[in-house]
Amino acid sequence: MVFKSYMSEALEEARNAGARGEVPVGAVLVSPEGEIVARAGNRTRELSDPSAHAEMLVVRAACAALGSERLPGHDLYVTLEPCAMCAAVIAAARIRRVYYGASDPKSGGVDHGACVFDHPQAHHSPEVYEGLAAQEAEALLRDFFASRR
Amino acid sequence: MVFKSYMSEALEEARNAGARGEVPVGAVLVSPEGEIVARAGNRTRELSDPSAHAEMLVVRAACAALGSERLPGHDLYVTLEPCAMCAAVIAAARIRRVYYGASDPKSGGVDHGACVFDHPQAHHSPEVYEGLAAQEAEALLRDFFASRR
Repeated sequence: MVFKSYMSEALEEARNAGARGEVPVGAVLVSPEGEIVARAGNRTRELSDPSAHAEMLVVRAACAALGSERLPGHDLYVTLEPCAMCAAVIAAARIRRVYYGASDPKSGGVDHGACVFDHPQAHHSPEVYEGLAAQEAEALLRDFFASRR
Repeated sequence: MVFKSYMSEALEEARNAGARGEVPVGAVLVSPEGEIVARAGNRTRELSDPSAHAEMLVVRAACAALGSERLPGHDLYVTLEPCAMCAAVIAAARIRRVYYGASDPKSGGVDHGACVFDHPQAHHSPEVYEGLAAQEAEALLRDFFASRR
């Protein structure tokens, strides 16, 4: 599977999240062998858990499955720029690469605000690639918030 | 109970974490009525979960118990300066005040590095009070790491 297909799977998770009334953000986590080992959309409302962002859920699921706090060699595909919380757990888990779709000037913590990976306190900085399928990811978010006004 | 006693409870959680082989950090979450509604120490190793810091665990537990993503009026007592991940979930949960013990230049995300609360992307900034029982909190951490060398 090429990276475009991984992001398609993340977008599918984002759409499913939106259908559940959650902010439509989705993520998949890919093993060094190229397998999708975890997939999730936001579930903060359903779980009453402010940490239940798509990225956090896939990191936690993959770590639990592997029995490890770290996921070296794993790549994360997520439809929106991670917030500071998710960026920090991505660093803690030693994720190799982060591919994200839409930019998030309002809440992002990778290329905005806290810029978590840019400080030595992060201990690990993944490679970051942004803009992948950004238009589709943005459209999902825009339509979701427009429908709730 | 006064704030000093809340921090004593957090220190007790930190000691328990150390006894389990976890980094000795503890936290308690206090309701607007002054009740301890959640208490935890680190459990990252036990749970194979890089997000299982004491602060994250008490926020998640209290949110689940209340059925809410937010904890307005709640105060957090934690023995060590929160990392960027925990700072961001504290902001997301709208915690009112954060009291922390030891400073953490190496991994802190409140007064070091990402300084998560200092950016508009955090959406909420709790009041922060640092240095409460700092010497005890530092001694626990120092002894723990010394014993593992």
